[in-house]
Amino acid sequence: MNRIQLFDQIKKKNSYLCVGLDTDIEKIPKHLQKMDDPVFEFNKEIIDATKEFCIAYKPNIAFYESLGAKGWESLRKTLAYIPKECFTIADAKRGDIGNTSSLYARAFFRNLSFDSITVAPYMGEDSVKPFLEFEGKWVILLIHTSNKGSDDFQLLQTREGKFLYEEVIFASQIWATPDQMMYVVGATHEEKMGSIRMLAPEHFFLVPGVGAQGGDMAAISKVGMNEQCGLIVNSSRAIIYASIKEDFAEAARKESLKIQSEMAKLLFEYCR
Amino acid sequence: MNRIQLFDQIKKKNSYLCVGLDTDIEKIPKHLQKMDDPVFEFNKEIIDATKEFCIAYKPNIAFYESLGAKGWESLRKTLAYIPKECFTIADAKRGDIGNTSSLYARAFFRNLSFDSITVAPYMGEDSVKPFLEFEGKWVILLIHTSNKGSDDFQLLQTREGKFLYEEVIFASQIWATPDQMMYVVGATHEEKMGSIRMLAPEHFFLVPGVGAQGGDMAAISKVGMNEQCGLIVNSSRAIIYASIKEDFAEAARKESLKIQSEMAKLLFEYCR
Repeated sequence: MNRIQLFDQIKKKNSYLCVGLDTDIEKIPKHLQKMDDPVFEFNKEIIDATKEFCIAYKPNIAFYESLGAKGWESLRKTLAYIPKECFTIADAKRGDIGNTSSLYARAFFRNLSFDSITVAPYMGEDSVKPFLEFEGKWVILLIHTSNKGSDDFQLLQTREGKFLYEEVIFASQIWATPDQMMYVVGATHEEKMGSIRMLAPEHFFLVPGVGAQGGDMAAISKVGMNEQCGLIVNSSRAIIYASIKEDFAEAARKESLKIQSEMAKLLFEYCR
Repeated sequence: MNRIQLFDQIKKKNSYLCVGLDTDIEKIPKHLQKMDDPVFEFNKEIIDATKEFCIAYKPNIAFYESLGAKGWESLRKTLAYIPKECFTIADAKRGDIGNTSSLYARAFFRNLSFDSITVAPYMGEDSVKPFLEFEGKWVILLIHTSNKGSDDFQLLQTREGKFLYEEVIFASQIWATPDQMMYVVGATHEEKMGSIRMLAPEHFFLVPGVGAQGGDMAAISKVGMNEQCGLIVNSSRAIIYASIKEDFAEAARKESLKIQSEMAKLLFEYCR
């Protein structure tokens, strides 16, 4: 999926919501636990309930990997079930020496047909480049993450007076265009979102940390949006565990509709 | 496995060799390709051929993940086959927000029984800590990796005149003791190995990059060893693809014996 198609979908659905499929086998309602593949059955119902209101799905790979071969199979079936117009993000935070990154790229882009993958920058250019060699696929590079520990290294200041995360933005813009690369910018860094947007005016940002982690959607939309929206805001637990009973899908539908309604207003206000 | 047990094994085998199981389905000899699980069959023969001469095995997770559910099953069987006295390293380079890192830890430490996992530091303390909560298990933190791109960010200098990788060493020593944490230090950075040893006198270093990538084992052993050896030197392709024909296991045996013999001399010389 290219940038124009992504923006088209945002306009069509009046939404820039990504539903995070952090599907925890222990939190799946009891009536699904009896089925052959409870994780897939849960995801299927969540996807059916939310697909009108979101433009992307982001399976968190750890949740599937922690279930071994069976989890990998649930992930494959989930990917095949997601409607083709939705953007898919493998939240995997991979990054390794060249030939190894190539294999991760093959796993997520070719075998599982993800549109994009989150990548950690610590190992530098040759750890990221192999992911850029797949046409029509995206790297979503970690810049300033939403967790508390994001300050530990990402906010180190270099001799030139830049934050480490700014150095990652500068370097990575040489590696790839805004048609191949997005950035992870946590909603918990509202005060930095505007300056990051100045450094990367055209890039899409994947924004985790709204809701449970404390980020404010209106505030980050105001400072983070660009002419093509430029934001994909993720919500995981607030949607998929809106209820942990039999009515979980209906509750997820309501919660995603609520977020989409707020997004429609923010798009009208800040994306023109 | 604790640090004393690891050093005991090093002394017993006169070796600090780790065999990297970067098992590429496309490079497995033809006669194994007909079997149910060629990756596992290949690993089994490699393990049988090398276990006398090495103290650790390091499956590179990307190689298994690129095969989906089947690869995950090959990995599980491989782990179960590795002799208990050998240290096992999941070369996974994971690192995510707290609850997600916990799931990766569960996947590799509990489900697959790995002794250790490689972890990327970019997301900071709370992305690493969940891996430290498993007793008797190890985090192997990326410090200065062996690839070319390792210079891009790891060698950025901070305002205090430190390299980024030095900041990672300082910070991580507050998070964990040398009984829970090791560091990845590439053999390709021979000129920095001595100064890194000064900053972390007691830690074990996992050292990739000898052989194909150009690192010199004698040189890095001279400057990197401590009183408990303190080095685990990895070799992958040079051993497992020493021959790509039916005699691959015998060739792997010869190559690992050759490296072990050199290591025995270096241990005698530098580890007293």
